[in-house]
Amino acid sequence: MGRISYVNGRYVSHYDAVVHIEDRGYQFADGVYEVVTIVAGRLVDMDPHFERLARSLCEMKIKWPITRRVLVLIMRELIKRNRLENGILYMQITRGVAPRDHKFPIDVRPSLIMTTKRIDFSAEKKQIVGVKVISIPDERWTRCDIKTISLLPNCLGKQKAAEVGAYEAWQVDQDGFVTEGTSSNAWIVTQNGHMLTRSPTNAILNGVTRLSLIKIAQEEGIVLEERGFTIEDAHQAREAFATSATSFVTPVINIDGKPVGDGTPGALTRQLIAWYTDYVAGLRTVA
Amino acid sequence: MGRISYVNGRYVSHYDAVVHIEDRGYQFADGVYEVVTIVAGRLVDMDPHFERLARSLCEMKIKWPITRRVLVLIMRELIKRNRLENGILYMQITRGVAPRDHKFPIDVRPSLIMTTKRIDFSAEKKQIVGVKVISIPDERWTRCDIKTISLLPNCLGKQKAAEVGAYEAWQVDQDGFVTEGTSSNAWIVTQNGHMLTRSPTNAILNGVTRLSLIKIAQEEGIVLEERGFTIEDAHQAREAFATSATSFVTPVINIDGKPVGDGTPGALTRQLIAWYTDYVAGLRTVA
Repeated sequence: MGRISYVNGRYVSHYDAVVHIEDRGYQFADGVYEVVTIVAGRLVDMDPHFERLARSLCEMKIKWPITRRVLVLIMRELIKRNRLENGILYMQITRGVAPRDHKFPIDVRPSLIMTTKRIDFSAEKKQIVGVKVISIPDERWTRCDIKTISLLPNCLGKQKAAEVGAYEAWQVDQDGFVTEGTSSNAWIVTQNGHMLTRSPTNAILNGVTRLSLIKIAQEEGIVLEERGFTIEDAHQAREAFATSATSFVTPVINIDGKPVGDGTPGALTRQLIAWYTDYVAGLRTVA
Repeated sequence: MGRISYVNGRYVSHYDAVVHIEDRGYQFADGVYEVVTIVAGRLVDMDPHFERLARSLCEMKIKWPITRRVLVLIMRELIKRNRLENGILYMQITRGVAPRDHKFPIDVRPSLIMTTKRIDFSAEKKQIVGVKVISIPDERWTRCDIKTISLLPNCLGKQKAAEVGAYEAWQVDQDGFVTEGTSSNAWIVTQNGHMLTRSPTNAILNGVTRLSLIKIAQEEGIVLEERGFTIEDAHQAREAFATSATSFVTPVINIDGKPVGDGTPGALTRQLIAWYTDYVAGLRTVA
């Protein structure tokens, strides 16, 4: 049997993994999700992922479809059935299936789906050679702190980047400050060696990788500043990088066609990649 | 056989109407839709609906899944199979099914679904007694002019209204001006008898009912002003109302707990309801 996915209580062939057309995720983007990294069969950062999921569900007033304990059992079972050693587990919870009406349905059971994807993290070249990013206006809604499936502007931004050969688009708010990438957090390393990334307000998704990297950096004595920076700041910076659960720490070597630093992955970024790679492999822990 | 829906080439029992979990509509809100009114078996305002659909697909760079001519044939067949005399036809087109990745997939076939819903428009009491609305901050993205399924903020707003016994939430932009309701356009009638509604920028969805009503009003010699108004303006107004394909013209008699005019449906609003009801019944045409 091929790849297995989980849909509302059943493990099914991924090919047959379907939901009703009146699932509110399909007609209203009324749902939340998490992407969990798996390294050597180990689920990375489970607690922060569940904390964020709990917050997303709470903000959206969506009930837990099942208990957290059972959710973990299903995640482990799906990983086992797919013999997944390295990759990601995608989990999505929507408000459920109901006749189309904007307001919340009463007594509806939330939908739960999970898929897995194999990734050979060691073969990911972008961490070695770095990536290009472009800047675009941040056109999203005001609650980017909730990890919802309302990702259309993110898709449009990512596509704009892809069309000019860039990996990511950094979104810039009305005041000229970078909020984040379309599927990753944005960072620079200043000329005095400080790590700089936007503080976790409603304008950004507080990445789990972002949080773990902050802990690692603090343990290593690196100064962190959580504040906005402009594209001009990024061009003046010593280094730049992006973080996400799927791409870990990725050096950014070029923004809008101009090199960052000397146009190659920075020294601190390379050090962070090494530390973070140890961390996901379980070779170091954080408090 | 019960209610029939259309999903990607097939007429199926609504109960069995399903799409794949990796349809981009389900994980990214990457799709557009239209809601067409049906009165006495007649599709109302077909041309403007198709014009808007064409614009939505173009802005989103989604291909037509089939030709417009075949789309109309399917719409008529679905209406026939459901013996629908009065109600709505809901049509949704998404970018299609592809492994989860924010950027657009290559060579993917767009998904097309359609459902119908029976509505006894003559029994709709809210047009006679009017409705209450509340005001909320407009938290949506910057491209509300495209009729996408990225409707989460609209759902959250509609729910806020429902929780306090209101029918709709009027969204207010950062400058204090009403943009529109969560699923309808917002209007007031000024003390000098002018109809006033926001101009069709990126901040609102240019409703088909809105456009038809403008034509009717112009033929009747009523002065129209397309510009923003505040909640304070609405409280000072003679009348207020909302328009949408499902609710036609609906009197708004109370905003944020304060009555509009004398707190009953206004005279011009009642006249507009009569004209618009004739229009959807095919008893009057517009240029």
